[in-house]
Amino acid sequence: MTERLVVIGGDAAGMSAASQARRRRGPDDLDIVVFERGHHTSYSACGIPYLVADVVHEAEELVARRPEEFRSRFAIEVHLRHEVVDIDLDRRQVGIRDLEAGSERRQGFDQLVVATGATPVRPRLAGVDAAGIYGVQVLDDGIALRRRLDRGGVARAVVVGGGYIGLEMAEALVQRGVEVALVEQGGQPMSTLDPDMGGLVADAMRSLGITLHLGESVTGFETADGELRAVVTTARRMAADLVVLGLGVRPNSQLARDAGLSVGTTGGIVTDRQMRTSIAGVWAAGDCVETFHRVSRRPIAIALGTHANKQGRVAGINLGKGYATFPGVVGTAATKICGVEIARTGLGEAEAEAAGFETEAVVVESTTRAGYFPGAALMKTKLIVERRSGRLLGAQIVGQENAAKRIDALAIALWNDMTVEDMTGLDLAYAPPFSPVWDPILIAARKAAERVEDTT
Amino acid sequence: MTERLVVIGGDAAGMSAASQARRRRGPDDLDIVVFERGHHTSYSACGIPYLVADVVHEAEELVARRPEEFRSRFAIEVHLRHEVVDIDLDRRQVGIRDLEAGSERRQGFDQLVVATGATPVRPRLAGVDAAGIYGVQVLDDGIALRRRLDRGGVARAVVVGGGYIGLEMAEALVQRGVEVALVEQGGQPMSTLDPDMGGLVADAMRSLGITLHLGESVTGFETADGELRAVVTTARRMAADLVVLGLGVRPNSQLARDAGLSVGTTGGIVTDRQMRTSIAGVWAAGDCVETFHRVSRRPIAIALGTHANKQGRVAGINLGKGYATFPGVVGTAATKICGVEIARTGLGEAEAEAAGFETEAVVVESTTRAGYFPGAALMKTKLIVERRSGRLLGAQIVGQENAAKRIDALAIALWNDMTVEDMTGLDLAYAPPFSPVWDPILIAARKAAERVEDTT
Repeated sequence: MTERLVVIGGDAAGMSAASQARRRRGPDDLDIVVFERGHHTSYSACGIPYLVADVVHEAEELVARRPEEFRSRFAIEVHLRHEVVDIDLDRRQVGIRDLEAGSERRQGFDQLVVATGATPVRPRLAGVDAAGIYGVQVLDDGIALRRRLDRGGVARAVVVGGGYIGLEMAEALVQRGVEVALVEQGGQPMSTLDPDMGGLVADAMRSLGITLHLGESVTGFETADGELRAVVTTARRMAADLVVLGLGVRPNSQLARDAGLSVGTTGGIVTDRQMRTSIAGVWAAGDCVETFHRVSRRPIAIALGTHANKQGRVAGINLGKGYATFPGVVGTAATKICGVEIARTGLGEAEAEAAGFETEAVVVESTTRAGYFPGAALMKTKLIVERRSGRLLGAQIVGQENAAKRIDALAIALWNDMTVEDMTGLDLAYAPPFSPVWDPILIAARKAAERVEDTT
Repeated sequence: MTERLVVIGGDAAGMSAASQARRRRGPDDLDIVVFERGHHTSYSACGIPYLVADVVHEAEELVARRPEEFRSRFAIEVHLRHEVVDIDLDRRQVGIRDLEAGSERRQGFDQLVVATGATPVRPRLAGVDAAGIYGVQVLDDGIALRRRLDRGGVARAVVVGGGYIGLEMAEALVQRGVEVALVEQGGQPMSTLDPDMGGLVADAMRSLGITLHLGESVTGFETADGELRAVVTTARRMAADLVVLGLGVRPNSQLARDAGLSVGTTGGIVTDRQMRTSIAGVWAAGDCVETFHRVSRRPIAIALGTHANKQGRVAGINLGKGYATFPGVVGTAATKICGVEIARTGLGEAEAEAAGFETEAVVVESTTRAGYFPGAALMKTKLIVERRSGRLLGAQIVGQENAAKRIDALAIALWNDMTVEDMTGLDLAYAPPFSPVWDPILIAARKAAERVEDTT
C-alpha cells in the first residue's frame, strides 16, 4: 500500500529529506507532498547578503531547484504559499492554510518530516514594525531589502547585531555605498569568536568605514507615518533610512511543541541520530531541531544550511528504509567581510571553560603562502586546547585571502580527538603558492604543544 | 663536559636539528658545528622554480636564515663550502674538505646529524654534461638557471621529466616567454596522480602551449663545442637552447652507507621514529632518510621540505634530551601550473592495489564556491577507498584557484583512518564565498559511500 509522506517546509532540510526518500522509494510506494509557506523552495539562505550586495544579481540564482523540477523529475508535489498550521499526531493529519486563497484543509500522512526552519529574533520594541526595518531570514526578505536599495535614497543604515548575518549585511550595505553603523550588545562583533580574535574583526570593520557601537542595545525606533526615521540605543540616537535586524534566530519549533513533540532546552525539536522525533514516523531536520555538539557533549541549536542538508538527507534515507545517522556538529563556521576572512570550529575559550574544560590557548601569526611568494597574506590562528592532555578543543582563524577554509583541517583534527602534539606531525600540503614550509596549522600546533609541555 | 654536535648539511633538516638542539642545550653543554658544501643555509628549495620564473625576484628571498644569524643568535657555527667526505664511526670523526681552500681536516663529534639531502637523478647519456643542461636541486642550480635566462637568447627549452619539478619548471619557462616541450616516459605528467587525474594536468599544460611528448625517453643530447644543441628522444630530435632535468631525486645516502649506517631498500638511511640511525648518537633527517608511509605501511623516500623540517626538529629535540617522534607520512603534496592546482594524499589506485588493498574510486566535479558566487571555479576530487570497509586510502584534486589546499582536510581524514561514510557527516565550513552548501569533500564522500554500499 502506498504510504504518504508530508514534509513541512520546502527548503534545505525538507527538500533533502524528500529527495532522498524518493531515491529509495518510488511513487507507488511513497507519495510525497511538501508544504512551503514562502514563495521558493531549496534556496540558499546564506546567499541572501550577496544578493543584497548585488554580488549575486538575481534572486533566481539562489534557487537550486524549482517546484516544477521536483514535480517532473522526482514526482514530489510541492505546494508553495501553503502553511501548515497544526499537526494532529493522533489522527495523523496536518492542517493547511492556502495563503493565497485564504482557505484551509486537512491532509493525512503516514510519515511526517518537520522542517520548519528558524525564526529570526525580533525584539518587541517600539516601532519595530515600521517600514524600513528588515529581517533577513527567508529569500523573500532578501528580495524586499534588495528592492528597497535598488529604489535608492538609502544613505544611512544601522545593522543591529554583530553575528554572521550582521557582519555579512554590513559588508553588503558598504558595497552598496551606504554609510553603515553596527550596534552590538557585546564588546565585539562575532561573539562566536574569543575577544582577541573578535577584536581583529572589529578592526577590519572599522577600516571599511563601518561605525561600531559596541556594548549598546537598541531600545526603540523612531518612526513617522509608519516609516523608520531613527534608531535609539542605550547610548545614542541615530538617524537611519534602513535597519537590518541580525539578532540571530531560534528554532521554529512551536508547531511541533503544540503537537506534543519533544522540544529541548535549546528550543529545538529533539531527535535521535536518525532524525526521528519522540513520535514514531515523525522526523525532524534542519534549523528547527537541536543537535549534539561533539566537543561540549551538549545539545545545541545551530541554524546552518550545511547541517540542514545533511540532517534532511539522513531523515530521507532512514524513512526511505535505508540507514544513516547524523553524527552531531563541532560548530564549524566561516564568513568574510571584504578582504578579511573569519572561521571557527569547536569551542571558544569561554565555551570550553563552561563545558568544564581547563584550557590553554595560543595565537600565532603566519602567512597563507611562503613569505617570499606573491600574495602571501597574514593570518592569525588560535588554538584552544585541553590543559595537560593537549587535546584540541577549538580553533579560530582571522586572516586575509585563503585563510578561512583552512579551518576544515582543524575541524577534522578536532573531530578525531587529536592532540596538538599529534598534530605537529600532520602531513599537510606544502608548496610555496599554498603554504609556508611550516604550515600555519603546524606552527600553531607546535606552539600549543610547547605550551602544554611547559605547564605539565 | 661539553659535547660536540656535528651536523652534515645546512639546509632544512640540518638547521632545524641544530636549532632545536640549541633551544634545549646551551653552548656550555653542546657545541654545534654545521658543514654545508653549498653557498647557502636554510633556503627554500621548493621556491627555486619561482625564482627562475622571476615571480620571486632575488635568490636571497629564498634564504630563511643566514650563517651569521645562526652564529650570533644561536651560537651555531656554520661552515659553508665545506663538504664532509667521510664519517669514521669508530673514532667519532668526520673528514672535511674546504671547497674554497682545497684543504682537508678532521673534526671529532659526540653527536652527529646526517642531513645530506637528495641527489638529482642524472641519466648517463651522451652530452649530459653540456652547458645549457640544468638540474634544479640546490639553490646554486636555480641561480645559475635564472642567470642563463636573464642573459637572453633562450627560445626553446626541453624539460625532461613530468613530476613536480618538471611541471613547475615548465610553468616557469612559459612565464619567461620560452617555448617549452616536456618529455615524460610515462603516459601522463604527474605520475603521482592516477591516469584520469593526470590527464587533466596534461590538458592544462597543453592549453598553456606546452608540447607534451609522453611515452618517450631521452636517449642523448647533441652538443657543439660543449654547448647543448638538441635533445634526442626515442621518438624525435628537438633543437633546444636549454634543458631542465626533472627526473626526480634519490636520497644522498652514500656517505652514510660507506660509514656503515643502515640504508634501506628505498636508498634512504634507516632511522627509528626518533630519527636515530642504527648507531648510537648518530641521527639522520630530511631527504636522505627513508620514512614510513602510514597507509601502505611501507618504507618510502620522499624529498620534501616540510618533512625535512619536521624530521630535523624531531632529531634536534631528542638529541636535546627532549622527546619527539616523527609519525611517518601519508604522501601529501601539492603544486600548480598557472591557474591549475594539483594535490594528492595517500595512495593512488595502482599504489593501493600494490599495497594489497582492494579499492573503489570515485571522481566528482564541483565548484570551489557556491555556484552562484563570483569566482566559483571547477574542481575535480577523486577518492580512493578500501572496498567493503570504505576506509579512505587516498585522494587527488585537480582544479582551479583555491582547490589544492583542500587536500589537507582529506589528509587529516586519512591520517585518522576515517571511512567515507564517517566523512559524509563532517562539519566543514560552509559560506557561499568558500564552498557550495555541499562541500566538494562531502559530495565526494557521499558518492564514495554510496559506491561502497552498492558493492557490499
